[in-house]
Amino acid sequence: MFIDRLVKKIKEKKSNVVVGLDPRIESIPKCVKDKYFKEYGKTLKAASEAILEFNKEMIDNVYDIVPAVKPQIAFYEQYGLEGLKAYRKTCEYAREKGLIVIGDIKRGDIGSTAKAYANAHLGNVNIEGITHETFSVDSITVNPYMGGDTLESFIKEIQEKDKGIFVLVKTSNKGSGQLQDLEVAGKKIYEVVAELVDELGQETLGQCGYTSIGAVVGATYPEQSKVLRKKMPKTYFLVPGYGAQGGTAENIIHSFNEDGLGAVINSSRGIIFAYKKDGYSEEKYGEAARTEAVKMRDAINKALELNNKCYY
Amino acid sequence: MFIDRLVKKIKEKKSNVVVGLDPRIESIPKCVKDKYFKEYGKTLKAASEAILEFNKEMIDNVYDIVPAVKPQIAFYEQYGLEGLKAYRKTCEYAREKGLIVIGDIKRGDIGSTAKAYANAHLGNVNIEGITHETFSVDSITVNPYMGGDTLESFIKEIQEKDKGIFVLVKTSNKGSGQLQDLEVAGKKIYEVVAELVDELGQETLGQCGYTSIGAVVGATYPEQSKVLRKKMPKTYFLVPGYGAQGGTAENIIHSFNEDGLGAVINSSRGIIFAYKKDGYSEEKYGEAARTEAVKMRDAINKALELNNKCYY
Repeated sequence: MFIDRLVKKIKEKKSNVVVGLDPRIESIPKCVKDKYFKEYGKTLKAASEAILEFNKEMIDNVYDIVPAVKPQIAFYEQYGLEGLKAYRKTCEYAREKGLIVIGDIKRGDIGSTAKAYANAHLGNVNIEGITHETFSVDSITVNPYMGGDTLESFIKEIQEKDKGIFVLVKTSNKGSGQLQDLEVAGKKIYEVVAELVDELGQETLGQCGYTSIGAVVGATYPEQSKVLRKKMPKTYFLVPGYGAQGGTAENIIHSFNEDGLGAVINSSRGIIFAYKKDGYSEEKYGEAARTEAVKMRDAINKALELNNKCYY
Repeated sequence: MFIDRLVKKIKEKKSNVVVGLDPRIESIPKCVKDKYFKEYGKTLKAASEAILEFNKEMIDNVYDIVPAVKPQIAFYEQYGLEGLKAYRKTCEYAREKGLIVIGDIKRGDIGSTAKAYANAHLGNVNIEGITHETFSVDSITVNPYMGGDTLESFIKEIQEKDKGIFVLVKTSNKGSGQLQDLEVAGKKIYEVVAELVDELGQETLGQCGYTSIGAVVGATYPEQSKVLRKKMPKTYFLVPGYGAQGGTAENIIHSFNEDGLGAVINSSRGIIFAYKKDGYSEEKYGEAARTEAVKMRDAINKALELNNKCYY
């Protein structure tokens, strides 16, 4: 099961950190991109090659200290086909290095369309009896607005292909409350979605006691995390919003169960563009990322220990 | 403004029909795909080339009788980079033929991620001062679950780049009610979203009296369409669910305003795979699609006339 693989990696690496691979050419070190601009001009290909080199350096520097990476596909889509090739190669490279890859694609659709997304991102596509892999990752993020059938469409794929999904429940952005916090018969919308995730998840329960249908629960809403942790006791949380968006190790402690498991915490800019911070240099951008990933791992582990939630 | 361009096309063609370009290799006529299988084997490239030829035949047969086409990107993503190349070329070809292209991508994210999606699908991306187009279409579908900031992120792009979005309000699938129909202080969730769309739309009001922020309202829920029409008087509706999903010309009449405008109706399988129905032949799959698109146009126009909603 996907979730067993994820928990195994977490315990092996003693780390709950997910590195968000959200590259944008403006923030890629000059020493990386200028080489490609020289070779290919200021083209989509140059940008995409620079991003791929940057990502590989990230992966090389963190693969032994984090269980997973999370590329946000929008940052690749914007560079067109070349960008998506970099996305695919990044995912492949990360998986080769033993990392779990969570494709942050936030797709959500139903029936044959959901199946097509699953073909694209979780499994493979069949062409007259021959199967082909395309953007295959271990897990993707899914948007629930269209209803439970959106999620149900993925269950078969999860079971057959040993994959996972993380459903948007309570997102980390400022405006997330506008729909998600509305109250329906004494329940918030995010609680309604949480119950759905909890229920559907039972069909994908792993040996580790967690399910392969996870939930996205933002680090920026600690009180809601507490409620949601109880609503979805067997659901793994993917927690965005740490670092750059304002979440701290204290904020995210409620996302964990008493066993110290149940959550992975994502940081993107705070790690991958750490080289911009005081004390780091552009040339050693990989080392800078590693240092920040270690700091984050240690801060979270320390917070877990202080709360008697040690998992290793 | 995007919306003025759309209304102009509707009036010119006397048609509210949108053709959904949702190809899957299983349903592409043998006479088209076998050629490519012979040349490239049963590969992603062969499937994608066959789909592109099929789409071009569709476009050639309908460009003079419909205002717009709506490719659903999932059906292209599943064939990987080759599939997305076919998506891009399909969009380009349709725009060359004077069609409005609505990319059914249902993306939804915030801040810099939303900007990246807008770069990818509505505008262009900047690489050190040089701009590049990638998947540029006229309009995309957007998922509102993350909140109003999801939509706000697109407004600047809409205004600057002369584009539009259609926000998922009430979708056509069976499970759509699970979240969208929940009642919050006397209001359904889809009404809350509708009010948001109506309000934000004011910033993109065109000369035609409609706004460039549209709404997706399923043909399968006529009663809800009636309510939503009143809630969003200046919003254009993109109506899926006609034909194969069960929507009829009678069902969708409430999606229109008294001026006979305010809605475009999508049919995918019912038109593009019409050749499978009795009375058509596989070799003339383009003609079959045209015949069905004409029938649908006429059925909708007749229903509009009967309801005194003539727009031409």
